[in-house]
Amino acid sequence: MSVSAEALRRFVKDVFLRAGLSDAHAAIVADVLVWADLRGVETHGVTRVPRYLGMIAAGDLNPAPAISVRTETAASVLLDTDRAAGPVAMTAGMEWAVRKAREAGVGLALVRGTTHTAALGYYTLLGARQGMAAIAMSGSIPNMAYHGARAAGVSTSPLSIAVPRGDTAPLVFDMGTGVISVGKLRQASKTGSAIPAGSALDASGNPTTDPRAAQIPLPLGGPKGSGLALMIECVTSLLVGNAILAETLAATPAGRHHKNNGLTLAIDIARFADPTAFAGEVDRLVRTLKALPRDPEVDEILAPGERGDRMAEERSRTGVPIPRATVDELARVAERLGVAMF
Amino acid sequence: MSVSAEALRRFVKDVFLRAGLSDAHAAIVADVLVWADLRGVETHGVTRVPRYLGMIAAGDLNPAPAISVRTETAASVLLDTDRAAGPVAMTAGMEWAVRKAREAGVGLALVRGTTHTAALGYYTLLGARQGMAAIAMSGSIPNMAYHGARAAGVSTSPLSIAVPRGDTAPLVFDMGTGVISVGKLRQASKTGSAIPAGSALDASGNPTTDPRAAQIPLPLGGPKGSGLALMIECVTSLLVGNAILAETLAATPAGRHHKNNGLTLAIDIARFADPTAFAGEVDRLVRTLKALPRDPEVDEILAPGERGDRMAEERSRTGVPIPRATVDELARVAERLGVAMF
Repeated sequence: MSVSAEALRRFVKDVFLRAGLSDAHAAIVADVLVWADLRGVETHGVTRVPRYLGMIAAGDLNPAPAISVRTETAASVLLDTDRAAGPVAMTAGMEWAVRKAREAGVGLALVRGTTHTAALGYYTLLGARQGMAAIAMSGSIPNMAYHGARAAGVSTSPLSIAVPRGDTAPLVFDMGTGVISVGKLRQASKTGSAIPAGSALDASGNPTTDPRAAQIPLPLGGPKGSGLALMIECVTSLLVGNAILAETLAATPAGRHHKNNGLTLAIDIARFADPTAFAGEVDRLVRTLKALPRDPEVDEILAPGERGDRMAEERSRTGVPIPRATVDELARVAERLGVAMF
Repeated sequence: MSVSAEALRRFVKDVFLRAGLSDAHAAIVADVLVWADLRGVETHGVTRVPRYLGMIAAGDLNPAPAISVRTETAASVLLDTDRAAGPVAMTAGMEWAVRKAREAGVGLALVRGTTHTAALGYYTLLGARQGMAAIAMSGSIPNMAYHGARAAGVSTSPLSIAVPRGDTAPLVFDMGTGVISVGKLRQASKTGSAIPAGSALDASGNPTTDPRAAQIPLPLGGPKGSGLALMIECVTSLLVGNAILAETLAATPAGRHHKNNGLTLAIDIARFADPTAFAGEVDRLVRTLKALPRDPEVDEILAPGERGDRMAEERSRTGVPIPRATVDELARVAERLGVAMF
């Protein structure tokens, strides 16, 4: 089933309006989730709707948060987001970072106490569209092995960086710190497709290639991926006084609730370089790399986000394919909340 | 041959004094190189001395740079380092970032036109010792394959993050973006020890496990490592208007000279959290991860930098082992410059 992005956005927005979010907040959540679906990142798309509703039901996601500035300096803020939906909190974070960067050259917003932060590329793109070199990270629950351990210890904490370009939309890079994403493991468990060796552990912590058993991603490059994930917890969760990993691993009462923390940073390019020259240099670098001798095993040398950009362009015209199982789940949500399906 | 850190520092300082660096600058270069040797990162230690001298001879490294502030905002500076030695320029960068962070909550220093930036962990450690969450990155020449290409296109651009801890020295994370470092490839070519499959290309761009032929590291996680390296070039070199990758790949006259650019960022932890509580949380997280069920294939679960910390402690007592070939090279330097050997 293929659905237009507008119809999907309308549906998701209606669902979250009904769940108690404001018009503005429901629109942001809808835009962020559908953005991921348009770009082919289905694991962070509308398939999350039932889980976000579950977080509201569990009291983990506050549909009507009072986002407040806990600390403000010349170049930074610490936002207490009062369990806001991740897209709402991280968008607020990047807007603050951009505002501070305009004043101070660089702007930092620490985002405390949000929920699933969704696709980070959305927020860095938001910054890059405003002339910023933008960085975002987020800390979440332990779902990835720490190097040398046979259990989940850190999160697949993502890191995203985006910069404006001249020719096209900004260059958006977004990586998880695992060899494979949790979403891809879930997908493989449904389809039964093979898991490459060295990418996952089963629930008991044993290495596995069995798609039905694989549950815990291994860290990218061993100590590199898990070390980066650990440092991201430090500069997000620990910096805002809202530890996630240690609390969850100790199974404290606080550790049993879903929460995320984030960091958004913006650098005002115009303060340091001519923005047109900068954008031209990014284009030139991408062109240069794409013209390198090609590995015969790949069809094309791609820039970060290029595949997603192309898919988004295509899906904006042809619609977003939604798997039957997801349609069924969303139909049950629609019925329960009295919202019209797409 | 084992040499005390003090003797090594004295030697390296004398060499660079003789090569025209000021007393303060020579001391910094000596401290940074010997720090790497103490921690077991020999590829970034005193073995670099002849190459740094070569850069001075080639006019790429300016022994008496006039480091100037090209741009200054409330929270940031762009330092034009006038081809200063990497350790001098990056130390200046981190000191500026810390000063700005004290005033503005977050501080950024962009470091333009330096040379080999050496071990980035030294600079983030410098920030962490002053109560900062510190980040550093550097952009350098294309020496790593871009994903999908069969040629060097990006750099093994490192990323370092450090935070203070309560129990011990700060937690210092430092990663290259390649599967393997250029230094390890050089080492393997000397010793003939095997190169793991999927880690390097030969000079013609063909995958190889032959230690004599391997020259170009492959990026960590394919598009993740090479994408991150590309973004690091954007937020260092392109932000300061001093492109490296595209210039070198196009073999322009400017592209034939060695240069590096860097970014240092400091976040003043005390503005956002109680520093003692923060440090205690870092300790708690590290303890928690080290107590996870252990993979029987490793002896111990380690924190980022833990192996280096231990080695530095040991080598501070027992001395730094220097391979015969390096001793011979340094003896030739000593003789040429009229400096006493260690």
